[in-house]
Amino acid sequence: MTTYRAPVEEMLFVMKEIADLDAIAALPGFEDATPDLVAAILDEAGKLGTDVLDPINASGDREGCTLENGVVRTPTGFKEAYAQFIEAGWNSMPFDPAYGGQGLPWLISTGVSEIWHGANMSFGLCPLLTGGAAELLSIHGSDELKKIYLEKMISGIWTGTMNLTEPQAGSDLARVRTKAVRDGGAYRISGQKIFITYGEHDFTENIIHLVLARLPDAPEGIKGISLFVVPKFLVNADGSLGERNDLRCGSLEHKLGINASPTAVMLFGENDGAVGYLVGEENRGIEYMFTMMNNARLAVGLEGVAIAERAYQRARAFAEDRVQGRDSATGGKEAVAIIQHPDVRRMLLSMRSQTEAVRALAYWVASRLDLSHRHPNPDEARKAKAYVDLLTPIVKAWSTDIGVEVANTGVQVHGGMGFIEETGAAQHLRDARIAPIYEGTNGIQAIDLAGRKIAREGGETMRTLIAEMRASIDAMGHPHARLSRAIDELQRATDWIVQNFQENPVTALAGAVPYLRLAGISIGGWLMVRTLEAARAQADENPRLAQRRQASVSFYARHILTQASGLADAVLDGSSVIADTAPENV
Amino acid sequence: MTTYRAPVEEMLFVMKEIADLDAIAALPGFEDATPDLVAAILDEAGKLGTDVLDPINASGDREGCTLENGVVRTPTGFKEAYAQFIEAGWNSMPFDPAYGGQGLPWLISTGVSEIWHGANMSFGLCPLLTGGAAELLSIHGSDELKKIYLEKMISGIWTGTMNLTEPQAGSDLARVRTKAVRDGGAYRISGQKIFITYGEHDFTENIIHLVLARLPDAPEGIKGISLFVVPKFLVNADGSLGERNDLRCGSLEHKLGINASPTAVMLFGENDGAVGYLVGEENRGIEYMFTMMNNARLAVGLEGVAIAERAYQRARAFAEDRVQGRDSATGGKEAVAIIQHPDVRRMLLSMRSQTEAVRALAYWVASRLDLSHRHPNPDEARKAKAYVDLLTPIVKAWSTDIGVEVANTGVQVHGGMGFIEETGAAQHLRDARIAPIYEGTNGIQAIDLAGRKIAREGGETMRTLIAEMRASIDAMGHPHARLSRAIDELQRATDWIVQNFQENPVTALAGAVPYLRLAGISIGGWLMVRTLEAARAQADENPRLAQRRQASVSFYARHILTQASGLADAVLDGSSVIADTAPENV
Repeated sequence: MTTYRAPVEEMLFVMKEIADLDAIAALPGFEDATPDLVAAILDEAGKLGTDVLDPINASGDREGCTLENGVVRTPTGFKEAYAQFIEAGWNSMPFDPAYGGQGLPWLISTGVSEIWHGANMSFGLCPLLTGGAAELLSIHGSDELKKIYLEKMISGIWTGTMNLTEPQAGSDLARVRTKAVRDGGAYRISGQKIFITYGEHDFTENIIHLVLARLPDAPEGIKGISLFVVPKFLVNADGSLGERNDLRCGSLEHKLGINASPTAVMLFGENDGAVGYLVGEENRGIEYMFTMMNNARLAVGLEGVAIAERAYQRARAFAEDRVQGRDSATGGKEAVAIIQHPDVRRMLLSMRSQTEAVRALAYWVASRLDLSHRHPNPDEARKAKAYVDLLTPIVKAWSTDIGVEVANTGVQVHGGMGFIEETGAAQHLRDARIAPIYEGTNGIQAIDLAGRKIAREGGETMRTLIAEMRASIDAMGHPHARLSRAIDELQRATDWIVQNFQENPVTALAGAVPYLRLAGISIGGWLMVRTLEAARAQADENPRLAQRRQASVSFYARHILTQASGLADAVLDGSSVIADTAPENV
Repeated sequence: MTTYRAPVEEMLFVMKEIADLDAIAALPGFEDATPDLVAAILDEAGKLGTDVLDPINASGDREGCTLENGVVRTPTGFKEAYAQFIEAGWNSMPFDPAYGGQGLPWLISTGVSEIWHGANMSFGLCPLLTGGAAELLSIHGSDELKKIYLEKMISGIWTGTMNLTEPQAGSDLARVRTKAVRDGGAYRISGQKIFITYGEHDFTENIIHLVLARLPDAPEGIKGISLFVVPKFLVNADGSLGERNDLRCGSLEHKLGINASPTAVMLFGENDGAVGYLVGEENRGIEYMFTMMNNARLAVGLEGVAIAERAYQRARAFAEDRVQGRDSATGGKEAVAIIQHPDVRRMLLSMRSQTEAVRALAYWVASRLDLSHRHPNPDEARKAKAYVDLLTPIVKAWSTDIGVEVANTGVQVHGGMGFIEETGAAQHLRDARIAPIYEGTNGIQAIDLAGRKIAREGGETMRTLIAEMRASIDAMGHPHARLSRAIDELQRATDWIVQNFQENPVTALAGAVPYLRLAGISIGGWLMVRTLEAARAQADENPRLAQRRQASVSFYARHILTQASGLADAVLDGSSVIADTAPENV
């Protein structure tokens, strides 16, 4: 069993060299985010991850959550870990100081969140959801709602949830049926929600549910859905807890992974209706949800990064320890550690290089988010915002696919031990598997990319990015041929999506997933090459960094970027096959 | 929840059109294997799969096996299912009639085994292991051993196991430490074996363990290991059960999947030593094991085919039922079944086409095995044998990788429901995950392919096969350009492996896995194109077959064969990166 270690050196390197930490720290309001402070924060977070969260990761998976008489108990140690977590102020990092937040850059909370998910993905989900709910309230909630709920959610004294899904309404929120009826200044909510992460638990006294529901006179479909704050316990005027609201956890799901996190069926309004408070205006719930969704998608993408890192660490430690087979170079009689075997090195390099690539992209996008919020030059802020919009589905889908693939390879590195649960490698695969599904399936991310992000604007932002990548490679002074070819393929596929989407949306959508993958590996490849250039520039001080980076970037170029032309072919040449195939022939 | 249906029509189609069923039935001794009989056998097996094995697949996974006071209990219904299975004679299909077998072609038992694994992989493992042990005994056992054990193992009245792995000896059997000492005409065995599938269970009165162990005066390493029959109960001269042998199940593993099958730690000789009987000669155990291993590897490859088929069936049924989202072609207001969505069709086509491809290869190789045993022309038999040797690692590794990938896509098709265990999709992924690991990890298969099967003979058999594929495409009368390009890439990579293996084994081995993948998709692509030609030829009688085949083969050509050049690049250009990377930089 290996202990999780936050890869702080790598995180700082990427933040500085790729995500422009210095520029972020120069933004108004972020003056405190010096590299030294960031390093100290990551170190502290790493300690909590290693000492508190990692030790309950496997036991939490085995134990799972229980529901008895309406009470959900999380596994041993989770409640105490959460108390420690909020006590140290971790929950409030990115939020508005006006409500008790620390106002630190997203980039930094991105690194910190990676640590929570890497150490214990089931645990990390609780602040992830609370953060999403708090963000939504902070943008769209009335001052009164903010006054009552926001500060306690930001501190983590109360947690938040997102109640979207219903049995008949998963990806298709137009089908939401949960009812809301006006009742004085408030509303009464009734209906069933499923897949509610941390919908009920024993961490905190109160849980603040954000619930999508439909008013009786609302328009049909997606434009008739409103958003409500529905607390587990009503809150008195003085902030103390009042009556229990009319809602309960009906059951917990039996899942493939993230077993330490309760996934609840929530029943609202079985009696008089749960009291709910409208967020913003009626019928604009989906619109509000979307303002939060981008960040939630980036956060889920980060889970992919984190699990990949964790799986890599475990596999690498095993490969160094496990002695089996002879050295194929020397043919010596002595058995050697399996990390000596070329195919094991191939597996580990594929794990590490792809983990580095998805991290580089996730952090770079996080820094664009900070620039979009705070850059004093509106053009720069707009450009950063356009990049965030374009790249969010890629961070979400590509990182989480890689999370699963890397965790899967991690199992393979362990051989037979990988299939035995005690080893821990299998848990990473099981945990990782949710991330390509929730917060918009990866298929939906690809559709969002091809449709909303590429076709709708005629590919403008992607072309800007492609031009920036090409200029950046030119400026390096020596060619990166495989990367340039991959970018050419991305250009070719982008042009095709733009040309075809309007007239043949079905065909264009049929190519969306390979297109997203192509974009991910190409843009990730560009960032990888940039890290290599940066590592080379400091090779004298840090030869180990330069050597390791050389290994992973060379691997990435030859084993990952070489997939680009096949992916572009699948988009251009393969999509019509799918589009033309009648469902009965599928 | 969907019920498993054996894809009998598809199986027969592949047997007839790809695996030369008519030619197999014309081989001496196989005269009874008429297409009608084969159809009847597959139908009957399909009934047992659907009615008996599939209904206990999910419950068996939930329940698992228990060990109490040395007794292993399999999940509810398994014991009864096994009784029904052997009662109907399914265990004995491919074996020698002299020992109660039915002497049917491997091709047919391949189809039948696919059904067991598709319906219930945990169940299917028991006859798989017994079959391997019986085959070993039938080739290398003395007449006396055969007389006592073989008939009962062939009928399935007793089951068999393979005791190879020890904690320090997984892929590296040279490290086996289990001891054997001579004791009169027999031996006394002591030591610990792990990962023993069906090492203990409640199906049968006796269990016949085949155990690798080392004599005190044996040479070091792989050439000092002997093979023993070690029965759970000693057998009296009259065939009745005698004393309990000195062996027991020490514990059961807690696994990611195949939970209904007991995976035992076996403790031999804790007291006086377990009585064992030598198979063949001393110190030749590994050699004997290898004669059996090929077929076991084909059998495990088939598990990949079977789970892929099962996962496809479940995902397709879900996609037809699940209503969510609007039709992107018409933009109509009504929600549609998700099978209408292009990306869901893409996922299902990727599942089906790859399942068809791995099945075509597995069945084709099974038929080569029959030809190799029975073809009256020794040259033809030798050629068939060479193909079997070459392709066995590809069937094992490629099919099982595809099994995992298809099961993984199956989870994705289900969206959030895919992560909930009750749906059943996740179990397929968990079950499938073992197949790339056991019976020689897929990395080891790739090394076997590149080293023993390609380099050692200078690529001769692969070149023969490439020439056969090219001639076959030429004879089709119209080009299959993507397939031809993939075969060119296979040729290029094969030449490179041949040229480099001798001088740079590390570099060549670093490319072994992408090389195996390239070989799999190219050869599988050739067989897919052949099925398309065959389906077109009968399009008048069976238009649905032709249409569905057109869809899956077109998809395969554009989405799978297009990966060939990237894979070849990874072999030729990418291997040296791995080889040159020091372990500390991995």
